[in-house]
Amino acid sequence: MKGRERNNSRKGDVDIELTDDYKKVTRDSEIDIVVELMGGVDGAYEVVKDALKHNKAVVSANKALLAYHRFELQKLAKTPFEYEASVAGGIPIIKALRDGLSANHIDEIQGIINGTCNYILTEMKKGRDYQEVLKEAQKLGYAEADPTFDVGGFDTAHKLLILASIAYNIDAKPEDILIEGIENINLTDIEFAREFDYEIKLLGIAKKIDNEVELRVHPTLIPKNKMIAKVEGVMNAVSVIGDVVGESVYYGPGAGGNATASAVISDIIEIVRGQNKPMLGYKRPLEVERLSLKISDNIETKYYLRIAVNDKIGVLEKIAHILAKNDISIESFLLFATHKSLEKNIKKAVAEIEKEEFVLKPINYIRIEE
Amino acid sequence: MKGRERNNSRKGDVDIELTDDYKKVTRDSEIDIVVELMGGVDGAYEVVKDALKHNKAVVSANKALLAYHRFELQKLAKTPFEYEASVAGGIPIIKALRDGLSANHIDEIQGIINGTCNYILTEMKKGRDYQEVLKEAQKLGYAEADPTFDVGGFDTAHKLLILASIAYNIDAKPEDILIEGIENINLTDIEFAREFDYEIKLLGIAKKIDNEVELRVHPTLIPKNKMIAKVEGVMNAVSVIGDVVGESVYYGPGAGGNATASAVISDIIEIVRGQNKPMLGYKRPLEVERLSLKISDNIETKYYLRIAVNDKIGVLEKIAHILAKNDISIESFLLFATHKSLEKNIKKAVAEIEKEEFVLKPINYIRIEE
Repeated sequence: MKGRERNNSRKGDVDIELTDDYKKVTRDSEIDIVVELMGGVDGAYEVVKDALKHNKAVVSANKALLAYHRFELQKLAKTPFEYEASVAGGIPIIKALRDGLSANHIDEIQGIINGTCNYILTEMKKGRDYQEVLKEAQKLGYAEADPTFDVGGFDTAHKLLILASIAYNIDAKPEDILIEGIENINLTDIEFAREFDYEIKLLGIAKKIDNEVELRVHPTLIPKNKMIAKVEGVMNAVSVIGDVVGESVYYGPGAGGNATASAVISDIIEIVRGQNKPMLGYKRPLEVERLSLKISDNIETKYYLRIAVNDKIGVLEKIAHILAKNDISIESFLLFATHKSLEKNIKKAVAEIEKEEFVLKPINYIRIEE
Repeated sequence: MKGRERNNSRKGDVDIELTDDYKKVTRDSEIDIVVELMGGVDGAYEVVKDALKHNKAVVSANKALLAYHRFELQKLAKTPFEYEASVAGGIPIIKALRDGLSANHIDEIQGIINGTCNYILTEMKKGRDYQEVLKEAQKLGYAEADPTFDVGGFDTAHKLLILASIAYNIDAKPEDILIEGIENINLTDIEFAREFDYEIKLLGIAKKIDNEVELRVHPTLIPKNKMIAKVEGVMNAVSVIGDVVGESVYYGPGAGGNATASAVISDIIEIVRGQNKPMLGYKRPLEVERLSLKISDNIETKYYLRIAVNDKIGVLEKIAHILAKNDISIESFLLFATHKSLEKNIKKAVAEIEKEEFVLKPINYIRIEE
């Protein structure tokens, strides 16, 4: 579409010029700020790169673009490059990490940053079946026709990577990190969680241990009395543990036009107010010490295992033997809630137990964070 | 104390010069930023005023100073003047209001911003008596020897005024607004709240209605399922409703050396990073449209009334008559939970009912926000 069109649909007439040649925008000397709301990775990458190259300030809401290219683009940027809307639009979590908590080294981030998954898990607590709730979420517009991106944890992973890059200056891609979705959570798990005062939430977790950062996305058992355990429905929340301040939690709507608009406009206002200008020689982005990514096999946490078995004599002994052999000690035998165990050991033990004929596959395990 | 002293108690030797003449600090051309952590109003006012007059950037953690003098000082300031630590130190709520939510007009703020009161109310839910818990809070260092400033709601009021001045550009003083503490909350109230799925919290509330702002501090019945209803112990939380984004909630530690340090340092970092420099002609502080304060008698909300009576025939009728005469309709007769009523009508009715000989004074009422 080309040519100047007039849009009278809103208060205050605005001249809007439409073009299918992005360079008319990114290279127009009259334009100060380019706002990218296209979605998708490759096309958006071209536009943002060209805009930054031509010294435009850029505002983006594109989490996929940022999950893959934020480092390269950030390096290129001599002008402000802001993307508050890319993670939990209604929560100014990027500004909180960068400005409000700037006196802290971040020890851990735990985020409920996908409303679809949180909605499904909340509804399942009422005893409703996963498939039934997913269908409803699709009908309500919370979940896409192909829900894999949400329920598979990939959307959460993209956002987690953006938060982690701000907190830890870490350059990881989605394929580098542990990602599990909520597809295998069933009512038995929900019931077990309730009985032992846990909630099951899909969390994006970034955890600093020495000079490494664990990045992982998975359904997680968290104690009921934690603030983020209390987040229900499509709402989002991010818990941040700073080394000085301890835990603070940020809660709000994660998606939707209004939440995104609020974040995009706040970025534009920030640029116009000039908050991005360096002074006394200090610049804001990417100043923090860069940490390296912990490989996911070395993640150590507690696990809850759900194993269905054909009830035969000796079954529990066999399972217990395999767990012990893999250095996994059991906190509660009935539930198979383990003590802290290594991810790789759990994987090995589960694979081995699954080989036993008395086991009804697959074995389900949920990590526990306390 | 004068002269240069050497402080070797921390890593990295620092030369510290001590003086009892503040002008040696505020007028030293070598000094860029003055950090005021004195507390108290008058002395701090002199120092901050002199520093701003001499074009120093100022960081203050002094809520009382700001509750009384922020407008005058802000007007004076040609340099950055930051005070994130003055409200809920561990929560970057001032930056969230000013930057993160800058695309929003703020419809309402509800804050649990006094840890002492929230601790006492949380402990009372275990069936413990107010006086007993207060004594414990004093022993734990949560409450001062004279606890009036905290439990009387004045500390909350100071902080509320600071938040309201950022959201609404409103110039009110503590004596202009409705302030009630938690001293009259007893176990009967706690029990009633539990039965009807409410929590009792001491809230600082700023609510925009047309061009007026209600500012009030009082114990409040709020539905159990709201996020701020779930804040326990000494923790703080602030719920903000923006016209674009809806509700977002900010949770964290409100007091203590670490929370304050985290906020003060983030302000210093902000100044050093130059985020306060105006650009394109726009400056950050006090841009929002100024609203006027609603007089507290015209506040309209729901009330829960606790009236102890000598059980005689006709007592309930008499009370019901007085309430009706004052335009107060009763939602639940047993509890005297009212529909929305005017503050002045409630005051009049309560005064009138208290005159009846069958009433055991005082009548207690708690406002309900849903």
